[in-house]
Amino acid sequence: MSFDQVSGILGVFGTIAFAITGVMAVAERRVDFFSAIVLGVITAVGGGTIRDLILDVPVFWSLDLSYIRIAVAASIVTFIALSIFTRPQLIKGILYVDAVGISLFGMGGALKAYELGFAWPIGPLMLGVITAIGGGLIRDVLTGRKTLLMSDEVYAVPVVIGCLTMLMMLNFFPTMNSTALITGATVAFVLRAAAITWDLRLPRWFTTQIK
Amino acid sequence: MSFDQVSGILGVFGTIAFAITGVMAVAERRVDFFSAIVLGVITAVGGGTIRDLILDVPVFWSLDLSYIRIAVAASIVTFIALSIFTRPQLIKGILYVDAVGISLFGMGGALKAYELGFAWPIGPLMLGVITAIGGGLIRDVLTGRKTLLMSDEVYAVPVVIGCLTMLMMLNFFPTMNSTALITGATVAFVLRAAAITWDLRLPRWFTTQIK
Amino acid sequence: MSFDQVSGILGVFGTIAFAITGVMAVAERRVDFFSAIVLGVITAVGGGTIRDLILDVPVFWSLDLSYIRIAVAASIVTFIALSIFTRPQLIKGILYVDAVGISLFGMGGALKAYELGFAWPIGPLMLGVITAIGGGLIRDVLTGRKTLLMSDEVYAVPVVIGCLTMLMMLNFFPTMNSTALITGATVAFVLRAAAITWDLRLPRWFTTQIK
Repeated sequence: MSFDQVSGILGVFGTIAFAITGVMAVAERRVDFFSAIVLGVITAVGGGTIRDLILDVPVFWSLDLSYIRIAVAASIVTFIALSIFTRPQLIKGILYVDAVGISLFGMGGALKAYELGFAWPIGPLMLGVITAIGGGLIRDVLTGRKTLLMSDEVYAVPVVIGCLTMLMMLNFFPTMNSTALITGATVAFVLRAAAITWDLRLPRWFTTQIK
Repeated sequence: MSFDQVSGILGVFGTIAFAITGVMAVAERRVDFFSAIVLGVITAVGGGTIRDLILDVPVFWSLDLSYIRIAVAASIVTFIALSIFTRPQLIKGILYVDAVGISLFGMGGALKAYELGFAWPIGPLMLGVITAIGGGLIRDVLTGRKTLLMSDEVYAVPVVIGCLTMLMMLNFFPTMNSTALITGATVAFVLRAAAITWDLRLPRWFTTQIK
Repeated sequence: MSFDQVSGILGVFGTIAFAITGVMAVAERRVDFFSAIVLGVITAVGGGTIRDLILDVPVFWSLDLSYIRIAVAASIVTFIALSIFTRPQLIKGILYVDAVGISLFGMGGALKAYELGFAWPIGPLMLGVITAIGGGLIRDVLTGRKTLLMSDEVYAVPVVIGCLTMLMMLNFFPTMNSTALITGATVAFVLRAAAITWDLRLPRWFTTQIK
C-alpha cells in the first residue's frame, strides 16, 4: 500500500471517530436530528479546517467531498445507534473514540505541515496539536461541556509525544513515511487509552492547582 | 432591480438582524455600551468572515466598509431601544430577528460559494449553513448562552431546506438568481418562524435523547 | 532604536503577558502541565492568528518561531510560579497582565492592518480590537470562564480609544511610528489599569441592563 493510501485511510477513520463523538456528545440532551448531524460534521472537519486556514491551502473537504459524505453517514449511523447505548457505557466509550480521532488527526495534521515545509520543527508540532484537539474543542464549546483540556486528564501530552515520535522518525528516515505515521498514531493512542482505562492522572505537583 | 442589488439589500438586512440579536443577547446582563457594540458587530460579520476565510477570498467587510458601519449603527439603535422592551417580549423577539438573519445569511453564503464554483454541491450547502449559524454560535458562546443548536428546536433544518431549495432552482434555472435567492430565504424563514410561533419540536424519536 | 525593533519588543511583551494569563486562568482547577502550556500558547497567539487569517498573510508565528518559544517559556515559568501566588492576589493580578496584553496586541494588530493598507480606517480599528481581545476570548471560552466582554467592566473601550489615538497620530504624522505605537499602547493600558484599580464602571444608563 502506498503512503497516500495509508494516510487517506487513517484520515477517513479519524473523520468517522470525530463525527461519532460529536453526535454522542449531545446524547443526554434532546437535540434534533439535523442539529446533531451539523454538530457531527463540524466536529469531524473543524480541526483540519483550522489547520488548512493556517497553512493557507484549500480546506481538505473542498478538494475531496467524500470527507463530508463520510462525516454525515457516520453521524446518521451514530444517531440511530444511540438508543443501543446506556449512559455509563457511553461516557467511557466517547473517550476511546475521541482518542482514536486525536491520534489520527494529530499525525495527519503534523504530516501535512511537514510536507508543506511549514515552520519546521515547531510548525508541524503546533498544527498536529491544533488538528487533533481543534474539532473536539469546538464540539465541547458548542455543547457547553467542560473541554477535555480543562482537567487533570492526560489529554494533550499523548498527542505531543506521538507527534514528536513521528517527526523524529521522519527526520532521520525520510522514506519511512507510512511507518512513521502509524508508529506516531499508535504511540498517541496507546498513551491516551491507557490514561482512560486506568484513570491515570499526572501527579498533583504536575498540575496547576494552587496548594 | 438587478441580482446584485437584491443580493446586496438582503445582505444588509441580514447584517442588521444579527447585530440586533448580538446586543439583545446581553440585555439581561450589565454589559457596557462599547462591549455591546463589539458583540453586535462580531455577531453580524462572524459567519460571513468564517465563510470568506474558507473560500480564501478577501473578507466581505474589508471590500465594502458599509457592512461594519451598518452593524455599528444597528447595534447603537438596539442599545438605545433596549429600554423599550420588556423581558418576555425580548426572548421571543430575539428568535424572530435571528430567524431573519439565518435565512438571509444562509442563502447569501450558499450563493457566494455557488458563484465561486466551490465544491459543488456540498460546498455551497456547507457554507450556507456555516454563514447562517456561525455568527449566532459565536454570539451564544461569547455570552455564555446555550447555543440554539443544542436543543430540540427546529433550527438547523430550515436553513438546510432553504439552501437546498435555492440550489436546486439555480441548478435547473441558472438565470433565475434573484427568484431562487428570495424563494430559498422565504422557505427558510417561514419554516423557522412557524417553529418559533407554534413551538414546533421534532418528534421525540427524532432527537438524540436516550430513552 | 528602529521602529521594527520597538514593535518587535512590544510584541514579545504582549506574547509573554497573554501566555501568563492563559496559565493563570486555570490556576484554580487541576489542569495538567501540558494542557496548561497548550492553553498558554493558544491564548498568546490566538488573537494574532485570527488577525493574520483575515489579512490573508502568513501567520506571524510561522515566520518567526521565537513567538512560540517565548510563549512556551512564559507558560512554563508561570506554571512553576503559580504556587507563589495566593488566590485573591491572582484574580487581581491576571487582570493587570491581561491589560498589558490587550494594549500591546491591540496596537500591534491595528498597525499591521494599517501598514498593509487594509480597509482604512475601519479595518485597522477592527483588527486592533480583534487582535487585542481574540486570545483572551478564546482563553475564557476554553476554560469556561465568563468572558471579560460580558460584564460592565471597562474592557473594550480602552482598546478602542488607544487604537484611535495611534491611528490618528499616524494619519497626521506618518513618520512618528514608534511614538504613535507607544502613545496608543500607554493610553489603552492607563485607561484599563485605572478601571481595574478603582473598579471603575460605566454609569448604569450606559449598560444594556433593562431597568
